[in-house]
Parts: sequence; structure tokens; C-alpha cells
Amino acid sequence: MYAILVYDVDEKRVSKINKYLKRYLIWVQNSVFEGEITDALLNEMMDGLDERLKEGDSVILYKFKTKGYVDRFIIGEKRDLNVI
Amino acid sequence: MYAILVYDVDEKRVSKINKYLKRYLIWVQNSVFEGEITDALLNEMMDGLDERLKEGDSVILYKFKTKGYVDRFIIGEKRDLNVI
Repeated sequence: MYAILVYDVDEKRVSKINKYLKRYLIWVQNSVFEGEITDALLNEMMDGLDERLKEGDSVILYKFKTKGYVDRFIIGEKRDLNVI
Repeated sequence: MYAILVYDVDEKRVSKINKYLKRYLIWVQNSVFEGEITDALLNEMMDGLDERLKEGDSVILYKFKTKGYVDRFIIGEKRDLNVI
């Protein structure tokens, strides 16, 4: 499936969460990750996030059966988009 | 259509961009907006963003034909989700 994940975590944890998410998805913007991922890896990633997040942190995960459902437009600076 | 918009703008412009986007979509996380929107309003919104963004700012817009394509999961704090 295809996943988009956006997070809003305390500054103290940003670097740790970023590093963790890079194991599973592609970093496309400050606090946004995207990519193809299997059910098993997605579950593993979400379990790991549960352990790492603290009070006040927030993560939204959007899931799609296929990347074909998603049209993406970007204004401004791009990051790593050549690999998607 | 259904839209998800994530932005990464200089701190100086966050409040202005937030206020602007609230005219069109629903604020669901720090720098994330979502909602049903028409083609005409989406174009208007993106034109307005173009005028308001400066160098270094970044906006990603994800578009879907229908909200039915999107599964959403949240970990942690929620904002305004009762209205979606």
C-alpha cells in the first residue's frame, strides 16, 4: 500500500523520530514521510512510534490501496523527490 | 475532491498561512489541513498560496477523487477531528 505520514512532536524528539521513520518511508518535507510499505512493516512502524511518542505528540497516517489514488503537487522547496 | 495539504514555512509566516488556509480547509495538525474542496476553490487557494510563500517555504498538496480512497489513523493528540 501507499502511506503518507505527518508528525508533530516535541522539538526534543524530532531527530529521533525522523531517524526512526527513515527506516520505513521517504522523507519528503520537514515533518512528512511517504512511500510504498507492506502491512507487516507498517504495523511494525506504528508499534515503534507508539513506544517513542510522548504526551502532546501527534502523528497522522494516511493509507491508500495504491499510489495511483494520489495526485501530488508541490510549491516551493523540494526534498528527495527524485527517489519517489 | 478531497485534499490534504502540509506546509513547512518560516516561523514568521506560520500564523498568516494558517489563517489563510482555514478559509478553505480544516486544520487537523500543526501544519496539516484536510477537507473536501472544489476545483475552483482549490485553484484559488493555490494561487493565493503562491503569492504568500517566500523562498525556502514548501507546500505539498495531495489530491484524491474521493475521501473514500483515504484511510486515516491517528496516534496522540487530535485537533478538530469531530468536524471531519
